[in-house]
Amino acid sequence: MKVDGKHFRSIWRERDGWSVGAIDQRRLPHEFIVAKLTSCEDAAVAIRDMLVRGAPLIGATAAYGMALAMREDASDAGLKRAYETLVVARPTAINLKWALDEMRAALAPIDPLERAEAAYARADEIVEQDVEINRGIAGNGLKLIEAIAAKKPGEVVNVLTHCNAGWLATVDWGTATAPIYLAHERGIKVHVWVDETRPRNQGASLTAWELGHHGVPHTVIPDNTGGHLMQHGMVDLAIVGTDRVAANGDVCNKIGTYLKALAAHDNGVPFYVALPSPTIDFAVHDGIRDIPIEQRSGVEVTDMTGRTADGRLETVRIVPEGSPVANYAFDVTPARLVTGLITERGVLKPDRASLAGAFPERIAAAVG
Amino acid sequence: MKVDGKHFRSIWRERDGWSVGAIDQRRLPHEFIVAKLTSCEDAAVAIRDMLVRGAPLIGATAAYGMALAMREDASDAGLKRAYETLVVARPTAINLKWALDEMRAALAPIDPLERAEAAYARADEIVEQDVEINRGIAGNGLKLIEAIAAKKPGEVVNVLTHCNAGWLATVDWGTATAPIYLAHERGIKVHVWVDETRPRNQGASLTAWELGHHGVPHTVIPDNTGGHLMQHGMVDLAIVGTDRVAANGDVCNKIGTYLKALAAHDNGVPFYVALPSPTIDFAVHDGIRDIPIEQRSGVEVTDMTGRTADGRLETVRIVPEGSPVANYAFDVTPARLVTGLITERGVLKPDRASLAGAFPERIAAAVG
Repeated sequence: MKVDGKHFRSIWRERDGWSVGAIDQRRLPHEFIVAKLTSCEDAAVAIRDMLVRGAPLIGATAAYGMALAMREDASDAGLKRAYETLVVARPTAINLKWALDEMRAALAPIDPLERAEAAYARADEIVEQDVEINRGIAGNGLKLIEAIAAKKPGEVVNVLTHCNAGWLATVDWGTATAPIYLAHERGIKVHVWVDETRPRNQGASLTAWELGHHGVPHTVIPDNTGGHLMQHGMVDLAIVGTDRVAANGDVCNKIGTYLKALAAHDNGVPFYVALPSPTIDFAVHDGIRDIPIEQRSGVEVTDMTGRTADGRLETVRIVPEGSPVANYAFDVTPARLVTGLITERGVLKPDRASLAGAFPERIAAAVG
Repeated sequence: MKVDGKHFRSIWRERDGWSVGAIDQRRLPHEFIVAKLTSCEDAAVAIRDMLVRGAPLIGATAAYGMALAMREDASDAGLKRAYETLVVARPTAINLKWALDEMRAALAPIDPLERAEAAYARADEIVEQDVEINRGIAGNGLKLIEAIAAKKPGEVVNVLTHCNAGWLATVDWGTATAPIYLAHERGIKVHVWVDETRPRNQGASLTAWELGHHGVPHTVIPDNTGGHLMQHGMVDLAIVGTDRVAANGDVCNKIGTYLKALAAHDNGVPFYVALPSPTIDFAVHDGIRDIPIEQRSGVEVTDMTGRTADGRLETVRIVPEGSPVANYAFDVTPARLVTGLITERGVLKPDRASLAGAFPERIAAAVG
């Protein structure tokens, strides 16, 4: 997508052909800084310190991390060390392990002298595949937006989203944002209500930043606001991303998603979840019961970072000293509240049969 | 209630007998500062700038504002000017107009020479009446908490609340917090989940502050969290306050209340609203359709104030420059999602017949 008219991806090979550029997302929305990764250790730190985040982008970064490692030491021991360094960089992201397994499978059988070149080639493929999946999501979700636009010619289509499932969380396009960017490109008037998404504010920090710099009209709202907007006909549809979809269609996503799904259901607003199919976990049969919910540091709740009027970055404490806080990172929205799952293979009903029918090879793999 | 062992109210007449003291709630939780109001204009500014907030406290402040005005100019013109100055200070709070109408009814018929003294007397009555009402709410709500405690002997009763309907929002006790303080006083183990309540963070800034300084166990959570907690049996009941209840039982309260009511309903968690009866607006027959929702400055969304690690108060911007924001201050929860209204005359069903039956004199006044 674009940053003030110039095309960017969230990660790329630099012109030297081997080093890797990535947007430092810790600095957004306050500063736009490109980091240069030149070693496997650089890639691991980028993942661990959340310079890059978002499941697909973490996978892409790990893949390039393996390629950088092969330049340094392409021996079997080097391959093993690189895998082990990268796989522990974040504890829960399923795409991280997936990408590393793909890389190892491609590199282990071949001559160490050929591994560096092969690693870049495979990493490039993983990156392009992510872009292709998200283009598929964009096309399938576009039909939903077009259908609404057709019902109210000339009027704005209002989409609500939560957290950041934008191009910054992937390589390009994003998941929840992909249909929005495509609709905007096609000249449909779209406007996005952006939940700020406390406590880490990925909505305000990242989604608003990327929509704004690409030129998509949007408005940042406190997380409390969506119900009121839906009650008054100000939301045409909701599209969110997801960290994991259970085999029964339950959707695990950033904390607060469940509340928006309830409000959408109460007001007859369609509630869609956009996802690349690797996000479906066919081994989990009941999302609410079985998906473990990460609890993160209370500092994310008590402290906020931003810019002062005179331009300094400062972190301030907003909760009284001595008051305990809790920080559950995700919640699970039951499938009954989800209108549809926007995947690269079409918009699916959130139930076992539809998911299994669309991805039979995944079922075979989960059983096998 | 208590602040570190010393008893405080949110507003009081100072020892000089005429000036008015009030806790400057804009400074909490970072600083505990008492403001002195010495004119009608001071009172109007205190209401407008949210030095005082919370419907009952706004009413009490307006009443003292009228008394301060009568010291300056007790003529009919002065009375009219004071009323007009104060009534526009906040748009949504019904108690503001109620208190001003009460004051005007008491003052208009009497000799201007007697108005100042009569105004202080009537304002004192309004203040004491608020404390009495909240004691009534405490007693009626206590029975609900006792019933839950009886079902799980020795275990903690978990109450979720939103925004600040605490003693800081009233003169003393609070509305939603009144049963909690009384249960705590009676030795029942209560724990409060405190919604931080973006954008102004009254939950984290005020409710957590007052519970903490009084000694009630509590945990601050992002507004996104309540649904997840209810889904996992971690909330026994929700009690919130309200800014206005319509004659049909619809509840207008801080933005986000509706989302918590939806989650409570979806999980079979009782959802109560605590209110002093002046908060009922018998002239509004459909809350969702007819209660106007205040829109406030976007600065409340874009900027956050807190303390830096080295103790300075700083305001930081957390939303990208150029991204528009929206700031709806309230939403309306439909009566069908409300388990009961905790009033000074008992716990009522949220419907027209129950409200009219409990407050027949208010119906007569609304018709008359």
